[in-house]
Amino acid sequence: MSKSIIIKKASSVDVRFKLTDGAGSDAVHTTPIYAYAVCKLKTDSNIEGVGLAFTLGMGNNLVCQAIDYLAKHIEGREINELMSNFGKVSKAMADDPNFRWLGPHKGVVHLALASVTNACFDLWAKANGIPLWKLLIDLPSESIVNTLDLSYLEDVMTREEAISILEKALPSKTERQGVLSTGYRGYDTSIGWFNYSDEKVKANIKKAMDAGFTAMKLKVGSEDATRDIRRAHLVRNTAGDAATIMLDVNQQWNLPKAIEVCKELKNINPFWIEEPTHPDDVLAHVTLAKEIAPIKLALGEHVPNRIIFKNYLQSECMHFNQVDAVRVGGISEFITISLMSKKYNVPVVPHVGDMGQIHQHLVLFNHISIGHEAIFLEHIPHLKTHFKYPVQIIDGYYQVPQQPGMSTDLKYK
Amino acid sequence: MSKSIIIKKASSVDVRFKLTDGAGSDAVHTTPIYAYAVCKLKTDSNIEGVGLAFTLGMGNNLVCQAIDYLAKHIEGREINELMSNFGKVSKAMADDPNFRWLGPHKGVVHLALASVTNACFDLWAKANGIPLWKLLIDLPSESIVNTLDLSYLEDVMTREEAISILEKALPSKTERQGVLSTGYRGYDTSIGWFNYSDEKVKANIKKAMDAGFTAMKLKVGSEDATRDIRRAHLVRNTAGDAATIMLDVNQQWNLPKAIEVCKELKNINPFWIEEPTHPDDVLAHVTLAKEIAPIKLALGEHVPNRIIFKNYLQSECMHFNQVDAVRVGGISEFITISLMSKKYNVPVVPHVGDMGQIHQHLVLFNHISIGHEAIFLEHIPHLKTHFKYPVQIIDGYYQVPQQPGMSTDLKYK
Repeated sequence: MSKSIIIKKASSVDVRFKLTDGAGSDAVHTTPIYAYAVCKLKTDSNIEGVGLAFTLGMGNNLVCQAIDYLAKHIEGREINELMSNFGKVSKAMADDPNFRWLGPHKGVVHLALASVTNACFDLWAKANGIPLWKLLIDLPSESIVNTLDLSYLEDVMTREEAISILEKALPSKTERQGVLSTGYRGYDTSIGWFNYSDEKVKANIKKAMDAGFTAMKLKVGSEDATRDIRRAHLVRNTAGDAATIMLDVNQQWNLPKAIEVCKELKNINPFWIEEPTHPDDVLAHVTLAKEIAPIKLALGEHVPNRIIFKNYLQSECMHFNQVDAVRVGGISEFITISLMSKKYNVPVVPHVGDMGQIHQHLVLFNHISIGHEAIFLEHIPHLKTHFKYPVQIIDGYYQVPQQPGMSTDLKYK
Repeated sequence: MSKSIIIKKASSVDVRFKLTDGAGSDAVHTTPIYAYAVCKLKTDSNIEGVGLAFTLGMGNNLVCQAIDYLAKHIEGREINELMSNFGKVSKAMADDPNFRWLGPHKGVVHLALASVTNACFDLWAKANGIPLWKLLIDLPSESIVNTLDLSYLEDVMTREEAISILEKALPSKTERQGVLSTGYRGYDTSIGWFNYSDEKVKANIKKAMDAGFTAMKLKVGSEDATRDIRRAHLVRNTAGDAATIMLDVNQQWNLPKAIEVCKELKNINPFWIEEPTHPDDVLAHVTLAKEIAPIKLALGEHVPNRIIFKNYLQSECMHFNQVDAVRVGGISEFITISLMSKKYNVPVVPHVGDMGQIHQHLVLFNHISIGHEAIFLEHIPHLKTHFKYPVQIIDGYYQVPQQPGMSTDLKYK
């Protein structure tokens, strides 16, 4: 039974975590600081909503200030009433005349929208006393679509079509709820951070496989491609032929280099190559996908909004959709993009700026209610000790979270 | 003769101007505040560099903070030495690991890059005691290209090709310098702001034509398209068949609506239709351009970087390139995009977030050194009283600025 809860105050908290010993390092960030621009919703009850946007370092403070500005759009609202038509509120925040010029729908202001939106979804689930995945899978299709801003998608997905994608998945929904007893696979992103030595990578692979992981990711994108190629072979040789291996370039190549190096990396049979070049360059990815077929591309970690995702899906160069609910405009836009991705038959395998805390819920929703197979979900353990209810992985499988909300409560904030 | 000048301190100033009586209103901004995130360079001489990024309202403060952070990349540098290889500095700022996640290359952090970059170009021209256009047209092709960050463009324009575009324009350069005695046409954006009444629009058209303007722009993008169509006919009927009329949608339509309304607007023979839909939606513009041919599209005011411009140019849906040096990463990226646009034979007609102060210089450079015909340049008079050396338009023609720098000094700041 849902409680009526009124949002009294929405405000930001700037939370940063220094990683050590090369953890989190990639071709861009050699000494990363993981940061959350947190949106906290104080209410007229003892229940709090907690939203996150992920950033890497200094600029987190700018996102926090933008959160504090957007707060006025939701303060004073009752959460169930607010979420009954959240799509309109989302659009009003995204198009706020004071901020729209700074995007539109990208960068600092869009990250702030993510945090505010996510806080609302968290509070909504808590008000209903259930985990977010449970709230979402029990909602009627129309209620789901009411939380979405579908503007600028009318050429590929109208409101009616969004509803019908959900309706089409209904008959097989009960069967797909089997995932609630099995969980689904995680994959290990931490075996091969950019700065890790060969020895550390080898040791990590063994540790990961002992812990039940069968899929793992290596950071590539070195100045010198021979380093990438050598390390990729090292991972394949250590993990064996049966392992699923992904390679992450973190946007370091231009198109000619991407074509050249991807062809070399083909030999290690990568499951995907991730972010080979600039995330805005849809046409470069189209050319690349054709040149290196059948190698598959995973894209989306830095794609800011549904409109650019639409272009990627329309142009058939995105083989795995890595939309991240703490990068796009929150859970609302994540669901929009997942629905559109279903239309184009592209699997959704989120990037986890949230370390999987929110996405563990969204993968269940996508699997059960949209019919996106839960292939697996990225796992990054470095912030585990900071969350009240960290993700649980047993024998390489994500367990189903049971606490009310979406697992974003932090321990000391 | 160039002075050696060292940048002692780079810092931001937040400057805002409230417009009144409907001036500046468009389909997004009904009560606009024009704002500049100014970057000031204090030096070891009495010469100051002044850079601008344009925003609309509250968020200007976020851009200012980002400017203050980027400052460290240029403080302590001698300006001529800095500009001799500015492309590298530009890339270092654009890829600063603390900010890159917040873009990359878009939104608040990229606007800050614009302001810092522009301040450096202003100081460079002042150090040489000449206006920016003069500095730029006298530079060897290689020195121009040294100021550019061409990364992620390797598939369409290498460094060598960028140089050769400039070299190809050399033989006809002297002839094109004729523009320095004639000036070039302005067009009037202020006849038809969104909130202006029919009477005011009619009166403004007469005023504009009396002042020598033969080209003008109307703001459309109303909820009710019949309002747009009625007003467009009013402008055509008042200005006469010989007038050049542009229609600006400010991104208000989705693709189906854009196709429908553009076909109706064909009757008034628009010179272009501007920003019909979302600026990230390259593929929607491709479809639209085909559907409404031969109507031409003007795009770029909200396109944040050279990579998305590349996609627009490659896909042949951009008929006029409206790149704005206070939106993309400053003059450096403006020149990059202008060179690429030359390769694709697309004329550059900048949007003027700077009210034309900087772009009056850049149009001269594009015309003389790249061979982009100076068709005309947008004119918006609302901030004229705030600049020390405001643009001068006589009989509808932009006059050539003669003061050292790039005309961005503000009166009271």
